[in-house]
Amino acid sequence: MARQSMREEIVEAGLEQFHTHGYSAAGVKDITDAAGVPKGSFYNHFTSKEALAVVAIQRYGDGLRLRELADSGVDPLTRLREHFEFLRDENLHRGITRGCLIGNFCTEIADHSEVIREAAQDSLHRWAALITAALAEAQGAGTVRADLNPETTARFVLNAWEGTLIAARADRSADAFDPFFDLVFGTLLAG
Amino acid sequence: MARQSMREEIVEAGLEQFHTHGYSAAGVKDITDAAGVPKGSFYNHFTSKEALAVVAIQRYGDGLRLRELADSGVDPLTRLREHFEFLRDENLHRGITRGCLIGNFCTEIADHSEVIREAAQDSLHRWAALITAALAEAQGAGTVRADLNPETTARFVLNAWEGTLIAARADRSADAFDPFFDLVFGTLLAG
Repeated sequence: MARQSMREEIVEAGLEQFHTHGYSAAGVKDITDAAGVPKGSFYNHFTSKEALAVVAIQRYGDGLRLRELADSGVDPLTRLREHFEFLRDENLHRGITRGCLIGNFCTEIADHSEVIREAAQDSLHRWAALITAALAEAQGAGTVRADLNPETTARFVLNAWEGTLIAARADRSADAFDPFFDLVFGTLLAG
Repeated sequence: MARQSMREEIVEAGLEQFHTHGYSAAGVKDITDAAGVPKGSFYNHFTSKEALAVVAIQRYGDGLRLRELADSGVDPLTRLREHFEFLRDENLHRGITRGCLIGNFCTEIADHSEVIREAAQDSLHRWAALITAALAEAQGAGTVRADLNPETTARFVLNAWEGTLIAARADRSADAFDPFFDLVFGTLLAG
């Protein structure tokens, strides 16, 4: 029980440190200090910082509320928009810092760690698959233009979101989210 | 003369190290080693690694062939597409690693350095302004749908490009570029 709790504290602190400072800047000691555990205890639970990063990506995915994307009780186009509004509002709440951990790891470390690259890829693919399903359902309901390939469009929309977070962090302005909502929901999907 | 040349070697090595390894992972010693100059010489030319990063962003922008975006001798929609095809091909040539230095710095370090954030923001704004002008010119020529706001659309397209590089690095696959070209040139701009 105690070991499980310590592992959990390391995962939570790792996610926070990676998200705030980046992969390279967050050292094992920073993470164990933030978790309030001895540095040596880290290696009882993880073979490396890299192994913790893989778990952190999975844990981060749990906070994206992806299940709500598949909630058939809500109109599909509405829940797609609400999904990105939720993520935007989270970013605004954090002063438009940190961005998306998955995107951050792709730009910083995916070239140098196959296991982190694969974990990030897997998270992006699962996310895109849920967007694909929502788009296909919206096409069935007649609220998204019928000639779009839902899978290609989902990948594009997710990429546009990740890039929007880059611009938002450069501008540190809420206005940076406007092109995404205007162009995706006002133009691209509506036709 | 000698000092100018040493400064130039540090800038080139810094750009390469930052682009390959990221900001935090590229230390001053890595940069001076790569440049083949003594570590102590760094501070004759730059007050800090941060100061070098600002110059590296500007230098990186010079390699984006942004001037070609404004070449009025080429049809505006064609030159916009050729611009992104050039960048895609550069990425393929590098094995789909490194991505865009500006986007990388935004995700890794913009939250922690105002001068780097401002330099990245400035580069993105100048890039978006050239895309805006090309889009407006294409609208005048009737090759881009007239109801799009060129400035908002330019920011969106640039964000979509930056996010495409994230997905491409996660997938490490040329296919990752397809949604960008399909959706931007095949759908969004064409209407």
